[in-house]
Amino acid sequence: MTTPLGSGREWTDPSCPVARTADLVGDRWSLLIVRDAMDGASTFTDFQQRLGIARNILTDRLRKLVDQGVLTTSTLPGGKRHSYELTAAGQDLFTVIVALRQWGERHAFADGESHSTLVDHDGNALSPLRPENRKGNPVTAATTRVRKTPH
Amino acid sequence: MTTPLGSGREWTDPSCPVARTADLVGDRWSLLIVRDAMDGASTFTDFQQRLGIARNILTDRLRKLVDQGVLTTSTLPGGKRHSYELTAAGQDLFTVIVALRQWGERHAFADGESHSTLVDHDGNALSPLRPENRKGNPVTAATTRVRKTPH
Repeated sequence: MTTPLGSGREWTDPSCPVARTADLVGDRWSLLIVRDAMDGASTFTDFQQRLGIARNILTDRLRKLVDQGVLTTSTLPGGKRHSYELTAAGQDLFTVIVALRQWGERHAFADGESHSTLVDHDGNALSPLRPENRKGNPVTAATTRVRKTPH
Repeated sequence: MTTPLGSGREWTDPSCPVARTADLVGDRWSLLIVRDAMDGASTFTDFQQRLGIARNILTDRLRKLVDQGVLTTSTLPGGKRHSYELTAAGQDLFTVIVALRQWGERHAFADGESHSTLVDHDGNALSPLRPENRKGNPVTAATTRVRKTPH
């Protein structure tokens, strides 16, 4: 990587990678725009119809995601409409989106309540993401700690 | 699970687990409160000092996280101050926080720029989370699709 995302901006908590990510994509609409871009949405109309979001908010979030390097935009033939695509860094948010999805499946739906499912080519759901240490053992908040940067 | 989180509230996109999670914790301050609770913060003052957040915003976010079942609160001896702890569902957001952290490490820091690190008992960083299908093969947005709920 040459220039990191968000370079030059003010960060809420500059030394924390969680906080930098939250600054870049940590709002409801940005996360859902990324979700829909992964699912094939590419034009303003695509996002607007899927999200039912106010046009001025969508305009603002798309602009920010482009400015921050999560989306890239190009002009469609005809010169008026724009296409939005995830950058490589944006594509790499797949793990974040899957983590949000799996948590929602576990905690925000009643037993038997129907919800959309992310499936592979065979139509099967994914395995649950599981944080592990380098030895392959599962870890939790209770078995890990945050090591601050050296001063 | 008996009652799911957010039961009875209005959802942005009711059938999507990503969207329900974004409704519940998808804002910058909520994510950082959860991060700090995992790192040992438990009182209003703890969160306020770590986050440098306006008191009225912190009050609002703590109340929402308690209402939605991500945090639980109890009164400390003396009767005035409250302690906040993650519920089991809140603890399970560990995977989401790790995913945000690892993405930030990869994309929001310059090479060699220092940042905090999440480490296990041995002081080693975690393995990268990697979405996989049931066969253990890595998957991406390009090799998966969202299957909608049946109507």
